Amino acid sequence: MQFELTKEYIDQLRDNIQESKEVEVFEMVRELHPADIAEIYDEISIDEARFIHVLLDNEVAADVLVELEEDDRERFLKVLPSEVIAQFIDKLDSDDAADVIGEFPEEKQEEVLSHIDDVEQAGDIVDLLNYDEDSAGGLMAKELITVNENWNIMTCLKEMRKQAEDIDEVYYVYVVDDNEILKGTLSLKKLLLTATNRKIANIINTDVISVKTDTPSEEVANIMDKYDLVALPVVDALNRLVGRITIDDVVDVIREEAERDYQLVSGITQDVESSDSAWILTRARIPWLFIGLFGGIIAALVMGVYEVDLGINPRMVFFIPLIAAMGGNVGVQSSSIIVQALASNSMGFESLGRKLLKELWVAGMNGIILSTVIFGYNYFFSDSFGLTLTVSCALFSVIIFASMFGTFVPMFLNRMEIDPALATGPFITTVNDIMGLFIYLMIGRVFFTLF
Amino acid sequence: MQFELTKEYIDQLRDNIQESKEVEVFEMVRELHPADIAEIYDEISIDEARFIHVLLDNEVAADVLVELEEDDRERFLKVLPSEVIAQFIDKLDSDDAADVIGEFPEEKQEEVLSHIDDVEQAGDIVDLLNYDEDSAGGLMAKELITVNENWNIMTCLKEMRKQAEDIDEVYYVYVVDDNEILKGTLSLKKLLLTATNRKIANIINTDVISVKTDTPSEEVANIMDKYDLVALPVVDALNRLVGRITIDDVVDVIREEAERDYQLVSGITQDVESSDSAWILTRARIPWLFIGLFGGIIAALVMGVYEVDLGINPRMVFFIPLIAAMGGNVGVQSSSIIVQALASNSMGFESLGRKLLKELWVAGMNGIILSTVIFGYNYFFSDSFGLTLTVSCALFSVIIFASMFGTFVPMFLNRMEIDPALATGPFITTVNDIMGLFIYLMIGRVFFTLF
Repeated sequence: MQFELTKEYIDQLRDNIQESKEVEVFEMVRELHPADIAEIYDEISIDEARFIHVLLDNEVAADVLVELEEDDRERFLKVLPSEVIAQFIDKLDSDDAADVIGEFPEEKQEEVLSHIDDVEQAGDIVDLLNYDEDSAGGLMAKELITVNENWNIMTCLKEMRKQAEDIDEVYYVYVVDDNEILKGTLSLKKLLLTATNRKIANIINTDVISVKTDTPSEEVANIMDKYDLVALPVVDALNRLVGRITIDDVVDVIREEAERDYQLVSGITQDVESSDSAWILTRARIPWLFIGLFGGIIAALVMGVYEVDLGINPRMVFFIPLIAAMGGNVGVQSSSIIVQALASNSMGFESLGRKLLKELWVAGMNGIILSTVIFGYNYFFSDSFGLTLTVSCALFSVIIFASMFGTFVPMFLNRMEIDPALATGPFITTVNDIMGLFIYLMIGRVFFTLF
Repeated sequence: MQFELTKEYIDQLRDNIQESKEVEVFEMVRELHPADIAEIYDEISIDEARFIHVLLDNEVAADVLVELEEDDRERFLKVLPSEVIAQFIDKLDSDDAADVIGEFPEEKQEEVLSHIDDVEQAGDIVDLLNYDEDSAGGLMAKELITVNENWNIMTCLKEMRKQAEDIDEVYYVYVVDDNEILKGTLSLKKLLLTATNRKIANIINTDVISVKTDTPSEEVANIMDKYDLVALPVVDALNRLVGRITIDDVVDVIREEAERDYQLVSGITQDVESSDSAWILTRARIPWLFIGLFGGIIAALVMGVYEVDLGINPRMVFFIPLIAAMGGNVGVQSSSIIVQALASNSMGFESLGRKLLKELWVAGMNGIILSTVIFGYNYFFSDSFGLTLTVSCALFSVIIFASMFGTFVPMFLNRMEIDPALATGPFITTVNDIMGLFIYLMIGRVFFTLF
């Protein structure tokens, strides 16, 4: 049943589009899942995609839009009149609809909304647009099945039949009281397997986990992951049920977060893909490179200060790359472990002080092992005992400094409520490069005076 | 309903355990979700955890085990006799049971299996243990509800009542023919809302996506994410239904993969957490540091070859950190973009040649901008035009080299079926450090001869 996108398929599709063979093109995409069609759009031009899009059933066309990458969708929709966009929006779940509309400038939003026929849908979208994108409110959909706790199962089923039409997937039925306060959930399994004359109150699961509309999406993801939930009800400040979040939206959150942290540690400032244009890729990469360049200039200035020392012991420069690289590597290791712990909420109750103490142990062990190795190397292959001692001591000190700094900075940023992932990658590497150099040259000056 | 783990709670719990107050301890954990209890175990000693564990209901105790981290679980179970472990295993879903048992050495596996009372469960576990951990077979559970395509809905409901007892969550009912071949799915919603005298064939969804038992778990995750599925049926080579994978297991796969790639790019060799012991953390970090150390020694040797040139132009060393750092940064950027594209299967149809060509463009733009800036800086602040030109040209060349190398290596590894993520982080940085240095010193030798 699965569709495998091949080069041959794309070539044939493009040929058919070139020759405006509407029937053949429709035949080629008719059976495909919207996610597959979105993948096809990725491989063809916007005009070709538009040729396909108008052939599609409105509902499928709407779902394809949701599956597109944000920037592709923006380019795609830019040329369509608001009435047409509204037709698609009308077919979407409220959360997807709000996501798509939310990307438009404000006037365009109002224009599209004014063309939506379904008043309830338009109202839901307006509601959802009020929430922060990165909160439970921004993730939730308004479509859900609610039943009253006082009903019996028969009434419940009748009511569900009415409500379920608009909803693709039903995992739970939510039970509320007369004031819309969330009381619990019913699993469809229980409903199916219980006699219809019983009261809902008898089979309700009251042990329900919910979030508030302003719960951050990261926390929503952690909760759904931890408790293995496929759907999570969202309540307002008065505990009234206002929406539900489904696991597929949360999987996207988890992926995006992981990608973001990954990109920051590797020195890329924004969400890019290898298939993006060269210009977008350049723009995403150059800011961190400027930090590196700036760091390099400072390193050059630091060395200028120690020019005399370097003149006396020219072989000291041989180990500058080693010291700088080790500082950078240790710093990235330390900071990324902290960033990961913060992201997955697994920091435990160790205080900042204890974390630093443990990190000191780890760094100490690494430092002793590595500086012993380099001491041994230089002892046999270098003719200067001063250099041997300098490199070894500097390496140890740099490892200690870099690990302390790499642990402290993300924890500090987190306490300041700044994203700790910003402290990983090129930032830590650059600072540790410079500090490592400084430590090395300073120790060298002292040791060469002594020996 | 959610449980917030606080320091006060842990302290009180430990006090109660210290004083062996069984009733009070049980009262404190009685209402908690297994995932919460597992979090508590993280914060207390093994003996304290064991005190709690024996108080728990068998089913809850079993679920807590599943929620523990792999190494914590290993330590926890090590001291328990096989009969007791078998009691827990008996209560688990077959996939979780197989995961837990799969961590034991072979003799222990057989011993535990021999103590499981439920013959069917034991058989399912043995079946599941045969599959590769990182395949659909390794992820799937045997518990599922199957109905025959020839039944009517009434028979179907009756049969479901029998089968559903053992299964926590039911999202779909799977429809098979007389030969157990998967024919389609029924959604519970459809079942609830359709008259009971109709045939299943009338409401079946035949457009069902399934995977084979040997589909890699990464691909399973991509499929479930792409098509927004909460459950995915698994079939054998003859298309017979053998199990189902649920989204919560796949969320774990996605998280673990992302964490693994993140750790590789930051130079950590295995799955560690900030709460692990200092010794485990050291062991996870030192291999990459040795690569860095080794690279540093080679860099020192390279500089030894150019000792005479550095003696003539001692200020050349000032810019060694800059050149090395930029090479490292650019390399990590390039390789991580490729690794991410490979992981999410979004490489598109661009060939290796075209990817390299685009990367050449990106590197060219970055290179021109950055080397112009450093040219300007040195032009005004350095008194040697030879140095100014050398640094600028070397920076440009290093950026080009590093980006080509960073793009090529992961794509090459991937073609060799080696995990491309191994090429990110310290490996790329170290190679680019050395190559950058070499390029810089070589260009310096040429330019200083010319000018």
